[in-house]
Amino acid sequence: MALTVYWGSGSAFAWRVLLALEVKNLAYDSKLISFEAKDNRAPGFLALNPRGKVPVLVDGDYVLYESEAILYYLDRKHPQPPLYGTSAEQAGAVMRSICEQNAYLETPLYDVVRPLYFGRIPDQADRVSAAVPLVAQELATIETRLGAQAWLATETLSAADLCLFPNVQTLRRALGKDTAAPLAAALLPFEERFPAIVRWTRSIESLPGYERTYPPHWR
Amino acid sequence: MALTVYWGSGSAFAWRVLLALEVKNLAYDSKLISFEAKDNRAPGFLALNPRGKVPVLVDGDYVLYESEAILYYLDRKHPQPPLYGTSAEQAGAVMRSICEQNAYLETPLYDVVRPLYFGRIPDQADRVSAAVPLVAQELATIETRLGAQAWLATETLSAADLCLFPNVQTLRRALGKDTAAPLAAALLPFEERFPAIVRWTRSIESLPGYERTYPPHWR
Repeated sequence: MALTVYWGSGSAFAWRVLLALEVKNLAYDSKLISFEAKDNRAPGFLALNPRGKVPVLVDGDYVLYESEAILYYLDRKHPQPPLYGTSAEQAGAVMRSICEQNAYLETPLYDVVRPLYFGRIPDQADRVSAAVPLVAQELATIETRLGAQAWLATETLSAADLCLFPNVQTLRRALGKDTAAPLAAALLPFEERFPAIVRWTRSIESLPGYERTYPPHWR
Repeated sequence: MALTVYWGSGSAFAWRVLLALEVKNLAYDSKLISFEAKDNRAPGFLALNPRGKVPVLVDGDYVLYESEAILYYLDRKHPQPPLYGTSAEQAGAVMRSICEQNAYLETPLYDVVRPLYFGRIPDQADRVSAAVPLVAQELATIETRLGAQAWLATETLSAADLCLFPNVQTLRRALGKDTAAPLAAALLPFEERFPAIVRWTRSIESLPGYERTYPPHWR
């Protein structure tokens, strides 16, 4: 088996890569590593990625990290189904969506998620409160788009969808914690505020192979 | 003339696009807008990019913003010379470099640059001091790479180089201010600490058409 992917349960970035491998119907050797056991700081792992982060893809002699780079590599090597559109115009739309997620959504999203996950809300309440409206605004834009079209950037599933989905699900899981309600009112109830996004998540959940990508410790 | 690019003097993000247009030897209509005059908040501009940011590319009926998306669009539409490698492996290396710049360099770099440019050092000295070692570490990694190879990600100029160059030059300009010295000792003198990076900037400065991309107000 040529492809090996190193991932961690609950890493949204690694989840993107697992989804891409399933969408492209590629066989892969799945290496689930443990952050608690500090597998990602082991010398063997640091030799693959000096930054000590997942995902890492190994394809024969070729080693690659950074989730968006891996998606792009897989698409260049295995073009079907295309994840970056079939025209320059679609390619631009896919990449624009990914750039917008990186520039405007990701930082505030994790400013909300991390304190909720790690129980550090008391000393980070200001940061959470500042981030919630930014997340709400970006999700509102995405909600509008997904109300008008099935997928985020093009008429079919693209890398933009695969980048967004794990972050949205990570956010929803964090918002499910009791401590979230007082801080994140502008995002709750998520299903009522963002019905098109929730419908879109179900489309991804129904992809063949999806179950293999689901974070084990979320079950 | 089919292509129109909206840019602002000193916007590193817009500079990337101008460089790509020159590298690809594409004719374009150059629309320099003024942030001081709030051209980017004018209704006509917001109709092109609701976020009110440069760069924006208009190609006939197609409108695109986000600098990395524009680079990718131009490359898909005008593949020569290729800016994302000629193999999947090279493509992955280019995208990895861009992702690493976004994830690890860009935020601390602008945490250093903005206070220096806008004279807000006194109230942001802590942020600058925290960011300087992060910038120094990322630049050291890049310095090592550019000491071993002429370009950042592949054997030829790529989108990774075009993304990095304007940010590096913006940083160097900020570090040239008198107020920088006490805070940014770990980065100074830049030419002595990062000679390979400086050599690489000269390679980009010698590209045909480079002069047309240089920020007018920097002269």
